[in-house]
Amino acid sequence: MSERVPSLDALSEALQRLPGVGPKSARRMVFHLLERDREGGRVLARALDRALEEVRHCRRCNNLTDTELCPICASSRRDQSFLCVVESPSDIPAVEQAASFNGTYYVLMGRLSPLDGIGPEDLPFDGLDRRIAEGVTEVVVATNATVEGEATAHYIYDRLEPQGVRVTRLAHGVPLGGELEFVDGSTIDRALTRRYSLEED
Amino acid sequence: MSERVPSLDALSEALQRLPGVGPKSARRMVFHLLERDREGGRVLARALDRALEEVRHCRRCNNLTDTELCPICASSRRDQSFLCVVESPSDIPAVEQAASFNGTYYVLMGRLSPLDGIGPEDLPFDGLDRRIAEGVTEVVVATNATVEGEATAHYIYDRLEPQGVRVTRLAHGVPLGGELEFVDGSTIDRALTRRYSLEED
Ligand SMILES: [Zn+2]
Ligand SMILES: [Zn+2]
Repeated sequence: MSERVPSLDALSEALQRLPGVGPKSARRMVFHLLERDREGGRVLARALDRALEEVRHCRRCNNLTDTELCPICASSRRDQSFLCVVESPSDIPAVEQAASFNGTYYVLMGRLSPLDGIGPEDLPFDGLDRRIAEGVTEVVVATNATVEGEATAHYIYDRLEPQGVRVTRLAHGVPLGGELEFVDGSTIDRALTRRYSLEED
Repeated sequence: MSERVPSLDALSEALQRLPGVGPKSARRMVFHLLERDREGGRVLARALDRALEEVRHCRRCNNLTDTELCPICASSRRDQSFLCVVESPSDIPAVEQAASFNGTYYVLMGRLSPLDGIGPEDLPFDGLDRRIAEGVTEVVVATNATVEGEATAHYIYDRLEPQGVRVTRLAHGVPLGGELEFVDGSTIDRALTRRYSLEED
C-alpha cells in the first residue's frame, strides 16, 4: 500500500542526506524523534541553524570556527612555530587526539591531483606562505597516506625547504591508503614521534 | 589539547541524540554538513521543524500523521473491517511492506507488562473498542513476539472474542524475541498468510 505522510517522508529523506544513513536507519530516527525525543529534534534543528549561520573557515588556517580566528590559532598555549598541514578541517580532530601535538594547523582544502586537474594554483598555498612568514620553523605534513597525499607532501617540501623550514612527514604507522580522519589517537601519536624529514625520501 | 568550537560541539551533541549515532559518526556528519552539503543541513532543520510542528497521532488509530485522520484511516481503498493491532507507530511501515495487507491499524502505544506495572487501564483499549464498534470483523494482533507482546495478544483475544470478532495472530515466521520493526516484508507476508486463531493456542 502507499498512503504517505508527507512531513514524515520529507524528514526521512533529509536524514538520508547524512553520511551512513539509509532508509531503515532514517525510519528509526524519525520515530525516535517524534515518539521518544521531540525535545532532541528541536535541539538538533536549532544546532543546525546555529552552526550553518556561525561556522566559517578561520581566516588564518582554514579550520572550521565560529569566531574570526579559530580557537587553536588564538591560543597562547599553542606552539605557533610548529605547523601541521592537513587536507581538510575534518582531519584536525584526528591529530588533536595525539596528546604530544601542541602546534597549530594549516588546512589545504584539498590535495594535489593532476588526474583531476588540481594543481598548486587551485589550493591556497599563498595562505601557507603567510603562515611560514609569521615564524614557522617546522612543518609536519599530515596529508592522507594516498598517492595524492604523498605527492602533495613532496610539493610542500620542494616549496618550503629552500626557505629554510624543516619539512617533516607523519611517520609510517598511518595505514597506507587509509583516510586520516579514521585513524586512532595512539597510532597518530607514534606517527608524530617517528616523523621523518622528506629529505630522507 | 582542548580548544573547542562551541557551535560545532553543540551540533555534534545534538546529532548524538539520534539512535545509532556515536561521537565518530557525529563528527563525520558535522563535517559533511558544513563542508559538503550546507543545503542538506538547511533542508534537515526545516524538515525537523515541520515534522515537529505538524506530526501528531491519528485520532482514530494513533498512527503518526500530519492530518486529522491518518492517510490509512482516510483511504477508501482500505478494508476498514480488517484491523491490525500493533504496539507502536514504528511497526506500521513493517506491516505495510507486506503486499497482501490492505486493512487498517490500531496502535496500542505500548504493551501489557505487569512487571513494569502496565495494565489494561494504562493502554487506550477504549479506542480499540470504538474501532470494533465501527464494524471490524477481524483483528490480527501484530504485537511483538516477546513475552509481553504474547500476553497482550491473549488479552485482546479475551476482550474481543466474546463480541464475535475473529481475533488472529501473525503466524510464526516472525523471529521469536525479535522486534517487529526490523522484520523484512516477505517474512511478514508469510506470517500474515499463516495467521492463526488464538483459539487454537
Ligand atoms: Zn585557525
Ligand atoms: Zn489512523
